[in-house]
Amino acid sequence: MRLSDIAQKLSCELRAEGDIEISRVAGIEDAGPGDLTFISNRKYIRHLKTTRASAVILGHDMPDVPLPSIRAANPYLVFARALELFYTPRAPEHGIDPTACVAQDARLGDNPSIGAHAVIGRQCEIGDNCVIYPHAVVYPGVVLGDDVVLHSHSVIREYCRLGNRVVVQNGSVVGSDGFGYAPQEDGTYYKIPQSGVVIIEDDVEIGACTTIDRAAVGATRIGRGVKIDNMVQIGHGCNIGENTVLAAQVGLAGSTKLGKNVQAGGQVGFAGHLAVGDGAVITAQSGIHQDIPAGAIMSGSPAVDNPSWRRAVIAFPQLPELVKKVRQLQRELEALKAQFISRVDI
Amino acid sequence: MRLSDIAQKLSCELRAEGDIEISRVAGIEDAGPGDLTFISNRKYIRHLKTTRASAVILGHDMPDVPLPSIRAANPYLVFARALELFYTPRAPEHGIDPTACVAQDARLGDNPSIGAHAVIGRQCEIGDNCVIYPHAVVYPGVVLGDDVVLHSHSVIREYCRLGNRVVVQNGSVVGSDGFGYAPQEDGTYYKIPQSGVVIIEDDVEIGACTTIDRAAVGATRIGRGVKIDNMVQIGHGCNIGENTVLAAQVGLAGSTKLGKNVQAGGQVGFAGHLAVGDGAVITAQSGIHQDIPAGAIMSGSPAVDNPSWRRAVIAFPQLPELVKKVRQLQRELEALKAQFISRVDI
Amino acid sequence: MRLSDIAQKLSCELRAEGDIEISRVAGIEDAGPGDLTFISNRKYIRHLKTTRASAVILGHDMPDVPLPSIRAANPYLVFARALELFYTPRAPEHGIDPTACVAQDARLGDNPSIGAHAVIGRQCEIGDNCVIYPHAVVYPGVVLGDDVVLHSHSVIREYCRLGNRVVVQNGSVVGSDGFGYAPQEDGTYYKIPQSGVVIIEDDVEIGACTTIDRAAVGATRIGRGVKIDNMVQIGHGCNIGENTVLAAQVGLAGSTKLGKNVQAGGQVGFAGHLAVGDGAVITAQSGIHQDIPAGAIMSGSPAVDNPSWRRAVIAFPQLPELVKKVRQLQRELEALKAQFISRVDI
Repeated sequence: MRLSDIAQKLSCELRAEGDIEISRVAGIEDAGPGDLTFISNRKYIRHLKTTRASAVILGHDMPDVPLPSIRAANPYLVFARALELFYTPRAPEHGIDPTACVAQDARLGDNPSIGAHAVIGRQCEIGDNCVIYPHAVVYPGVVLGDDVVLHSHSVIREYCRLGNRVVVQNGSVVGSDGFGYAPQEDGTYYKIPQSGVVIIEDDVEIGACTTIDRAAVGATRIGRGVKIDNMVQIGHGCNIGENTVLAAQVGLAGSTKLGKNVQAGGQVGFAGHLAVGDGAVITAQSGIHQDIPAGAIMSGSPAVDNPSWRRAVIAFPQLPELVKKVRQLQRELEALKAQFISRVDI
Repeated sequence: MRLSDIAQKLSCELRAEGDIEISRVAGIEDAGPGDLTFISNRKYIRHLKTTRASAVILGHDMPDVPLPSIRAANPYLVFARALELFYTPRAPEHGIDPTACVAQDARLGDNPSIGAHAVIGRQCEIGDNCVIYPHAVVYPGVVLGDDVVLHSHSVIREYCRLGNRVVVQNGSVVGSDGFGYAPQEDGTYYKIPQSGVVIIEDDVEIGACTTIDRAAVGATRIGRGVKIDNMVQIGHGCNIGENTVLAAQVGLAGSTKLGKNVQAGGQVGFAGHLAVGDGAVITAQSGIHQDIPAGAIMSGSPAVDNPSWRRAVIAFPQLPELVKKVRQLQRELEALKAQFISRVDI
Repeated sequence: MRLSDIAQKLSCELRAEGDIEISRVAGIEDAGPGDLTFISNRKYIRHLKTTRASAVILGHDMPDVPLPSIRAANPYLVFARALELFYTPRAPEHGIDPTACVAQDARLGDNPSIGAHAVIGRQCEIGDNCVIYPHAVVYPGVVLGDDVVLHSHSVIREYCRLGNRVVVQNGSVVGSDGFGYAPQEDGTYYKIPQSGVVIIEDDVEIGACTTIDRAAVGATRIGRGVKIDNMVQIGHGCNIGENTVLAAQVGLAGSTKLGKNVQAGGQVGFAGHLAVGDGAVITAQSGIHQDIPAGAIMSGSPAVDNPSWRRAVIAFPQLPELVKKVRQLQRELEALKAQFISRVDI
């Protein structure tokens, strides 16, 4: 495909003398002749000097470069759309594999794709164009919207409801029992029935080996457009607002509410029963133990506002030296006091 | 069901004028007319002013409230039991699904429920009333007690033994190989055969996507009544005492021993070869690098006693200011010394 | 087997008067008469006084002991090899289970072992002597080398390639979609197609419930001999050097490169787009936010060099006391200044 055609299809500015043929989209370090590459992270600008790529997607505000460029306000988005011009994901096979177990009273939409050994339980309702990969298991009473994709070894537990275009990667579990036990006097625990469900709205994507627990009562809710990475744990009764993004290995204890467009970095932990405001950003490995206002940027465990944390962690390795200095100051002050008193006394 | 009947069935005190009809148990924020709600976490007491619930389960020691209440010493436990009056979990289907693969020499107890595509390996012994959901896999030589529940995509590896009433949620793995490799001179690693097993005692519950490694030699042991949340990692050769509770994403390296009634919050990490005493409490995200005495409350990474940690983390954001103050003190002290010497010299 | 035979087979020095019969290899706390035990961690030397074992494997440099010993330069390696003399892992069943679904155009090597309900997709190429346990799923277009072992509920996604002798424990996912979304102006996210693959070289072992994401473009690469524990998350486009070891619950964000023989302790987090040099050691629960030179030992979150971190964390609990001391110093200095001025003025 010609670079000029790509620029046109993606409605981007083309900065090039003449035109060239592009055969692939590639990362800047791997790209070679014929490849279109991209820079969305400024850290990689230095590679522009050495890349063997034939052309690059750049922000409007990035400097002039010696190779042909496609300019965009959102180069990462344009990279995604350029990739789609060259890459077609493997189409799932249509129809119902003869080894799949679909309950007789399950209702299937149009154009189903149900893979080998997949299981669809009783009284399920499956929307149109759903792709259920081999070995996905849908417990009884589940409702799936249209265009849902369940990858192999994902599980949707009883009565949970997924909206349209929800994607669940491999090994994830939607609707496992919440972790609720009442301590008893003899030191044992009594299990709280987890009678609720999980409700997942449209356009949510769930990574691999993620677990979303069903509520004890009511519902655990994942709002429209939420993106959840691998190995994220969402406790029972949580409520995640629209377009919130949770990176890998994040954990939420029960009944915590995240607002819209919240971002949590990898391995962040949230205590239970908290409220986090819209647009809050929690940096990686932080621990949230109290309510967070909208728009706050929080870091550390327990988390404080990000600028305070940055200053404190820079100072932290100086702490032993500080302890010594203070001891030294104490000694010097004592000496000076003694001297002062002795002189004054004279 | 009438509120008075509920109070009677659960042997609780009823504080109400007249009687009312209850149709559901619900969380305090979602509850409406006809709902019975509960408060076990004092954080939610403020909602009593605005709840639309018709009645509430409260501790004996909680204040008087305008709506009818059921009073109990352990309101969370009574909530669980009230929930059971209204909620019947979906009964699993009985019998053996024709697509399940049960080895000919496996011994099954009475009243089995073995779902679609489940696999029971050779020489397994399965107790009475076990529920093996679709796609659970039981490797050869496994012994399950009575009333065990294995959810879809759980795996019990070869020769592991589970007691009575053990529940394993979806995607969990019992008996995966421990992580043992001997470093060799050329920088490669030699795998230690993981010849041991996992032994799980009665009444243990295991969350979703949790992994419990088999021992290199001997057994990894999970004591009676232990409750393990989702995505918990238990290394080879660990020994978890009775009624210990591990929250989500906790990790234990190999050969660590936890006492009875230990509690570990979310994302806690334990180094290997440690001993943690009975009743110790480790707060979320802490890192345990040394033995912990019985009853200790530990926090931080590396963990220290909780009161010290609380004071230290409050002081932490003041650290940069402290560095400045000390520098200022040094300057002032130097100035004073200089002044003192000059005056004295005169 | 006689102890002298064991010593001879493993080319080790025997320190014993007379010879004895050994029937088992066991851990030092569990060992009884007839057992051979071992010490590789010095923490356990104290158990030598009380062990009931009949003999022990020790380093050459360890002290004389009252019981017979086998001496080796690498006692942990010799323990592994001694264990192999007594323990034969259960052999997988050979052949192809009739319930397995193997695509007609998949190419199988010699001596396959494909368990119940396993799925091998279209156009896969499977090497010789591979063991595909029940319920493992291999998506279309995957290439497996010789002697690969895929445990139940592991998944290899489309087009990924595994070298020889790769072992994948239960529930792990190789090739799930990377977590790449371009933010759009309306607050929603646009999914970046994850068009790349995962390439795993020879002799890699992958624990249970671990996820390795496919690259957006190009490949996520796991070098020869890498050992990965349970619940490790490896983001898209990462590159892990040979013989690197990642303990449980480690997480790597996208495009990070680890050198050869790197060691990361449990729950370590790596930010994206970093380079970590050969032989670097990252201690448990650390957070790596910048490039790390070869051979560095790093600790803390954010990580600093290990000696600085050790000193700082020891000082940390003294911080509240330090704050008080500085306040006291300020007061004393002010008082002294005032005194000094008043005296001088007189």
